[in-house]
Amino acid sequence: MSYSYLDIVKIADAFPYPGPGGESTINDYVHFRVAAHPYETLGFILPDVADTLKDLPGGLWISPTTLAMRAIGRFRLLNKWRGELFPVYGPNKELLFSIEPSASPLFGVVVYGVNMTAFRWSGGSNNNRQGSLQVWVPRRSSTRAKFPNMLDSSVGGGLATGGTPWSCIIRESEEEASLEEGLVRCAQEVGTITYFYVSGEGSGGESGLAQPERSYVFDLDLTGFPPDALTMNDDSVAAFELLTVPEVKLALGRKEFKPNCALVMLDFLIRHGQLTVEEEPGIQEISVRMHRKMDFPLR
Amino acid sequence: MSYSYLDIVKIADAFPYPGPGGESTINDYVHFRVAAHPYETLGFILPDVADTLKDLPGGLWISPTTLAMRAIGRFRLLNKWRGELFPVYGPNKELLFSIEPSASPLFGVVVYGVNMTAFRWSGGSNNNRQGSLQVWVPRRSSTRAKFPNMLDSSVGGGLATGGTPWSCIIRESEEEASLEEGLVRCAQEVGTITYFYVSGEGSGGESGLAQPERSYVFDLDLTGFPPDALTMNDDSVAAFELLTVPEVKLALGRKEFKPNCALVMLDFLIRHGQLTVEEEPGIQEISVRMHRKMDFPLR
Repeated sequence: MSYSYLDIVKIADAFPYPGPGGESTINDYVHFRVAAHPYETLGFILPDVADTLKDLPGGLWISPTTLAMRAIGRFRLLNKWRGELFPVYGPNKELLFSIEPSASPLFGVVVYGVNMTAFRWSGGSNNNRQGSLQVWVPRRSSTRAKFPNMLDSSVGGGLATGGTPWSCIIRESEEEASLEEGLVRCAQEVGTITYFYVSGEGSGGESGLAQPERSYVFDLDLTGFPPDALTMNDDSVAAFELLTVPEVKLALGRKEFKPNCALVMLDFLIRHGQLTVEEEPGIQEISVRMHRKMDFPLR
Repeated sequence: MSYSYLDIVKIADAFPYPGPGGESTINDYVHFRVAAHPYETLGFILPDVADTLKDLPGGLWISPTTLAMRAIGRFRLLNKWRGELFPVYGPNKELLFSIEPSASPLFGVVVYGVNMTAFRWSGGSNNNRQGSLQVWVPRRSSTRAKFPNMLDSSVGGGLATGGTPWSCIIRESEEEASLEEGLVRCAQEVGTITYFYVSGEGSGGESGLAQPERSYVFDLDLTGFPPDALTMNDDSVAAFELLTVPEVKLALGRKEFKPNCALVMLDFLIRHGQLTVEEEPGIQEISVRMHRKMDFPLR
């Protein structure tokens, strides 16, 4: 079965919108707030997660709380503890606190990331966009907790506290795709996508968790480079493939891409004139949904 | 005085968002509905416009109504009667009816358009994005009713009933910029922008009218072409200039661009890596606002 591109967007941007049908689901979640900003909701928490939180030691402090949540062993999500810290921002874009990323979905706070698409024009010049556009697409390892075996962005990763989109994409490009810093610095920063995921099948943990996400998007034009310009460097990637646009579209229609990476790929195809309203009448709704307005403070 | 890019976006996307402050303004408008879809709001009408509508002959039929509105001479907006028909769509993307475009803002219905940015890379190859990016920018004639003397997209226009984005951009490119169809067909269709304007200073008519708009965006890469590749053809354009990116940014900061064309230009700069979060921390909000979710049925 093949899915429409809009169907695929709805997998990554699954959190209901306000209005008929959506309001009741939204009201199911408990609002996560901090004392310093009593009227700002920083995230949405599932009611049974909130119940567990009440009984934990650590009280108002996020690090002891997440450690205690890990210690009780109730949340499968926390089995993949990463020992990193991701930022949570306040209404003036100030850093409020940092949180272990595996615990972010339990609090429903916004997570920031970077995604880069490495591509080349083959058999024509880039100027006239003749020839064939090809994209480097990695397949995730079968051993990964989240979305094993699915297709991914050329390079991607989460943005830790203190990191910048550039420092993050440079590090991840080396770690995941053996790309040298000098080359990655030729990438173009081409905007952001914002969407509201809800954990489910493949997320590697509890379902129904609110996961608002924003990603800084990069393009890396490797026209003239050989197919092995990106190669695996660690065990997160099983293999890289150089896919043509029709092959990318086929894989999208089969839901082979990790949900948020499908958005990155659709944004890439739209920006490069490879997916137009003539082919996908839902393209405008796709553009709106992947630039979703969030009611949380954002960086 | 120089304005931030986000300030400029807020001029084009001026209609308030729901929530504190916005709700009361939104509730000021009368909902425009048709009998076939009693629960779908097609547009927002200012209360005093709605009062006038009640007293007009023509009743439920849009064409006699707009003609009667024109006849009473109460609305300055209708002095620029265009004698064209723009589409209004229903919840299933079906054409419900067509409306004279000068009257669209009185009913607050969504208007569709096209905007193309013609650009070239000068002094470097397009592949490595070295050299200088330049954009053809027309200045609107001083005699135009709407936004005289302001800077515009390279080419732009409204989408009439029965037209397609491509047929529209091809016709407007010939009419406004003397570009031949064969060249325009090399353009790339690179997405849509959606925003909610409110008529004000420069709109050439009543203020406070709701003007939800969606534009199909095209890029035309004219690297290697001379500066006079675009030339005026009718009296809508005073002159074309080939501006560098710093010149475009300066003009944006001085509010020299027609509001919606400022959005088109910002979208172009972001997609081409010329405006990044390092320069404009509000870039993500800009992306969200120019892909605004509308609560009207859309094509």
